[in-house]
Amino acid sequence: MSRYWSDLTHKLTPYVPGEQPKITNLVKLNTNENPFPPSPQAVSAMRAVVGDDLRLYPDPTCSELRQSLAQLHGLAIDQVFVGNGSDEVLAHAFQALLKQDERILFPDVTYGFYPVYGDLFGIHYEQVPLAQDLTINVDDYLGPNGGVILANPNAPTGCLLSLGQIRTLLQGNPDRVVIIDEAYIDFGGQSAAALVPEFDNLLVVQTLSKSRSLAGLRVGMAFGQAHLIQGLERIKNSFNPYPLSREALAGATAAVADVAYFDKTRQTIMAMRQWLSEQLAALDFTMTDSKANFVFVEHARMGAADIAGGLRERGIIVRHLTANPRTQNYLRISVGTQAECDVLVSALGEILV
Amino acid sequence: MSRYWSDLTHKLTPYVPGEQPKITNLVKLNTNENPFPPSPQAVSAMRAVVGDDLRLYPDPTCSELRQSLAQLHGLAIDQVFVGNGSDEVLAHAFQALLKQDERILFPDVTYGFYPVYGDLFGIHYEQVPLAQDLTINVDDYLGPNGGVILANPNAPTGCLLSLGQIRTLLQGNPDRVVIIDEAYIDFGGQSAAALVPEFDNLLVVQTLSKSRSLAGLRVGMAFGQAHLIQGLERIKNSFNPYPLSREALAGATAAVADVAYFDKTRQTIMAMRQWLSEQLAALDFTMTDSKANFVFVEHARMGAADIAGGLRERGIIVRHLTANPRTQNYLRISVGTQAECDVLVSALGEILV
Repeated sequence: MSRYWSDLTHKLTPYVPGEQPKITNLVKLNTNENPFPPSPQAVSAMRAVVGDDLRLYPDPTCSELRQSLAQLHGLAIDQVFVGNGSDEVLAHAFQALLKQDERILFPDVTYGFYPVYGDLFGIHYEQVPLAQDLTINVDDYLGPNGGVILANPNAPTGCLLSLGQIRTLLQGNPDRVVIIDEAYIDFGGQSAAALVPEFDNLLVVQTLSKSRSLAGLRVGMAFGQAHLIQGLERIKNSFNPYPLSREALAGATAAVADVAYFDKTRQTIMAMRQWLSEQLAALDFTMTDSKANFVFVEHARMGAADIAGGLRERGIIVRHLTANPRTQNYLRISVGTQAECDVLVSALGEILV
Repeated sequence: MSRYWSDLTHKLTPYVPGEQPKITNLVKLNTNENPFPPSPQAVSAMRAVVGDDLRLYPDPTCSELRQSLAQLHGLAIDQVFVGNGSDEVLAHAFQALLKQDERILFPDVTYGFYPVYGDLFGIHYEQVPLAQDLTINVDDYLGPNGGVILANPNAPTGCLLSLGQIRTLLQGNPDRVVIIDEAYIDFGGQSAAALVPEFDNLLVVQTLSKSRSLAGLRVGMAFGQAHLIQGLERIKNSFNPYPLSREALAGATAAVADVAYFDKTRQTIMAMRQWLSEQLAALDFTMTDSKANFVFVEHARMGAADIAGGLRERGIIVRHLTANPRTQNYLRISVGTQAECDVLVSALGEILV
């Protein structure tokens, strides 16, 4: 508290990210990091730019990276925006596109940053309850609103909307922007980026943190028709015109280009999710149909807090999100390597005896 | 233009950074980049972290870097904030500390981003005219206000305020925050960071882009008493909790620690500024008393636009800022290497015959 703070600063409730412990040798399954290292081509590209040229500003238009992303999705470069992690991209999108007179809509159980952005930018919002089975019912998002933002797959449930459902949402909100936040789309979903040419009210947000194993590099992106991207650029150029460093640009461009590595690692993670789900079901967990790189599970008999506590005693961290009463008995567990999943399953076997 | 933009997005006039041409072999003296490469220790530290661990999120508290900066300035770690370039740090400071009911004050000739932040965050501001000799008169900033922000040395003039003048400013504004933006302080000024323990209303902002030769890495920082830093953290954690990548943290920490390299390069730049100023005076330029890594010059006979045009034809880019009528006949020229300054002086000799 300080008498020098703005009123806004006093009123904020900042987001609390998942714990990043400084202890090593933990099995860290709490922040959905990719168990595989980044593409070797991305690492080489970064090594190549770490040197004397860092004295020079990076390209503020991020052209090479945007071109590489445009090519991947069959879009034009002016339909691509990039920023310092998808959190920054989302923040700009809230300010540029979702700050309207009416309330914006998002689910009551979703990425916990959405209400924080709402409060930061003075945007009214309504948190729409998920269906009984924790899925999103798109019909709930067709009434009057100032915009809609959905995570797809949703976090922390992992439940996926089809492109048909997203199409319904876009058609039902012709005067408002619909943002689809696809942080986890590459682990089993189809990206709505394919719908960009067809819908002028669609913005798709993605990140390199999960499926490209680059959480440590901080690169996010958005896809939309040029007029929406221009709106984001106006905010970005009024806030920080150089959001991406030279190595971030080089590493991200190379990671996007290495489609073979991307496909191999994400397929392995999907197979591991299937294996882990079967093991957890055998231990009497029920779970959502997750298409993300995590599972969202509840145990038939033991409470989530007790399980999380037992795992922590054994050096395993998972995420227990308690904000919403409907899901406070669930745990979100990242899909790790085979070795990490083995350790997890074996520890759960001990805890649940 | 888009009907989907927020009202704010329509109204903004984004900042226009100095040109970053993609042509090579230019003598680029337009964005005050350091002519020397970054510290070799910083380069080694970055090379060491470019690898598998980039799959993991960076430390959101940036502890190691903040500790290293705290030590350098004799402060505590909770008196240090870091962000994605000083532009992001300034943006957070405007929103956290300068958004008050009264108008904030800054000079009519200064960093062109200040009015952009004002417009972005709905902060009223008054642009106070510089004195006749283009210096800042601190007495002009002692009346009622919502806060004060001054660049020291000022940009694009390079004129420096003493710590005594800053002390007067702080004492005269006990109820408001005074931000001293020290992007260029290491080229001949004394940092107001030394005054942090004494004044609870002081925030000092710096960058690694200029004196640490790391414009390509995007790291900025702020120093102030813990309650002010907490205000910045509240905004940061409501916007983007992970602003700095793993390599940015590693490179910045090592650059800050390499004081010997920092001192050697900045001393060389100051000596080169002196030499360049003498050469320009001999060519009938007048100039401010710049304590930055640029000179701010006006020619006795030829107009700034013509000189800039003549230099560009010879592959040399300097900055001609035309926004303010009082300084539109000046050029801001970065202090380059000896070779670059030689090329510049020789080209000016041709243009001015």
